[in-house]
Amino acid sequence: MEASRPLDALNNARNKRVIVELKNGSQILGLLRAFDIHINVVLDEAEERKEGQLLRKLGTAFLRGDTIILISPAQ
Amino acid sequence: MEASRPLDALNNARNKRVIVELKNGSQILGLLRAFDIHINVVLDEAEERKEGQLLRKLGTAFLRGDTIILISPAQ
Amino acid sequence: MEASRPLDALNNARNKRVIVELKNGSQILGLLRAFDIHINVVLDEAEERKEGQLLRKLGTAFLRGDTIILISPAQ
Amino acid sequence: MEASRPLDALNNARNKRVIVELKNGSQILGLLRAFDIHINVVLDEAEERKEGQLLRKLGTAFLRGDTIILISPAQ
Amino acid sequence: MEASRPLDALNNARNKRVIVELKNGSQILGLLRAFDIHINVVLDEAEERKEGQLLRKLGTAFLRGDTIILISPAQ
Amino acid sequence: MEASRPLDALNNARNKRVIVELKNGSQILGLLRAFDIHINVVLDEAEERKEGQLLRKLGTAFLRGDTIILISPAQ
Amino acid sequence: MEASRPLDALNNARNKRVIVELKNGSQILGLLRAFDIHINVVLDEAEERKEGQLLRKLGTAFLRGDTIILISPAQ
Repeated sequence: MEASRPLDALNNARNKRVIVELKNGSQILGLLRAFDIHINVVLDEAEERKEGQLLRKLGTAFLRGDTIILISPAQ
Repeated sequence: MEASRPLDALNNARNKRVIVELKNGSQILGLLRAFDIHINVVLDEAEERKEGQLLRKLGTAFLRGDTIILISPAQ
Repeated sequence: MEASRPLDALNNARNKRVIVELKNGSQILGLLRAFDIHINVVLDEAEERKEGQLLRKLGTAFLRGDTIILISPAQ
Repeated sequence: MEASRPLDALNNARNKRVIVELKNGSQILGLLRAFDIHINVVLDEAEERKEGQLLRKLGTAFLRGDTIILISPAQ
Repeated sequence: MEASRPLDALNNARNKRVIVELKNGSQILGLLRAFDIHINVVLDEAEERKEGQLLRKLGTAFLRGDTIILISPAQ
Repeated sequence: MEASRPLDALNNARNKRVIVELKNGSQILGLLRAFDIHINVVLDEAEERKEGQLLRKLGTAFLRGDTIILISPAQ
Repeated sequence: MEASRPLDALNNARNKRVIVELKNGSQILGLLRAFDIHINVVLDEAEERKEGQLLRKLGTAFLRGDTIILISPAQ
């Protein structure tokens, strides 16, 4: 995804699977459905993982922007 | 809940049971009654859980937005 | 207390006994006398508790909003 | 001190002895001389205490609002 | 990169390899594709390293500005 | 220094020796030369102390406001 | 450097060697090339030190303002 502004990169990832890393060390994977300028994001089919292992399935998840470290395409 | 903006997802969850995860590690479950752009939320029939076990019943609870990590439908 | 906006819930709790949980782990109980959009609150007849035990009586207490995790009716 | 807005309560405490609790766990006692909307406060005859014991006398002290947990009349 | 304003320096580093240090202690290397005034940044060909060792490849990564300590050209 | 607004107290301390306590536990002493509404301050003849002992001389020091707990006249 | 406003002191230090202390405990030395009102700064010929010892050379470094404790002329 090529981008001149950071939010363009998030827009390119919309409806694709992403990994979201949180400040508390957990990773949430899911389909990126929505985001805003605070980097609040909504994932569908979300699940939490730790060191590659599934911890739990969340379904839809609203993540508050200020808890997020990075967002990257899931591989 | 389909959404193009993150707060739409919260709106879709209004009056449904949600789980709210807080930065201090606790989980609050309850009916989502209200929220605002700071992600301050109000839950009814709220209860606090830790590792699946009920810690205490809170009734109505106002949660300050900046303590929230994620909000997800309760399963 | 029914509410469409979070601050309505606080308004419904005015002059009633509430429990305020702080980020440092302490709980302050008292009569909710005032609050503002930062969730700064003022309690009367306030007392601090830890694990159900009275730690000290505070009388009136001004609590800065950004130290607050949740506010709930005292039971 | 009766109050409909939180800052009214601080205004009622002006020129009276208050205890200010800080996020780092220390307590500053003194005469409340000034405050602003950020809850920056100025105390006169200020002294720092820990567990009821005097640690040191500060004279006048400017306390930055975002380090403050609560302000309460000294008893 | 000579600069009179800090963001000019980031602009000079666009499309070059940079190292981004995060508050949680990890280092992300990649091509700087985008940034904004919050210092949100997007890297391509991003990889995470710890003490010089490759931890994982991220591809594109959106990094939230408030988790960043410093950005410097990769050497 | 008498003051009705907190920044008046800092203004009264201008060009006098003050002690600045930081959130990381260190104390910086020096002549208060400048401050702004963020409580960013500049000290001259600044030195860092820990438990009354001189750690190092800094000369002029710019201190970012959000790292400051309190500012008080040096005694 | 004499100053009535804190940023004047930074302006006086432009193109001079400064030491920047960060909240994570590290020290970055370098030539101060740019800064803004958030205290984002850019250093050239930057190097990181710990307890007087060179850890690594960074070349140009952009430092995010909210990670900075103090900025002082290097001695």
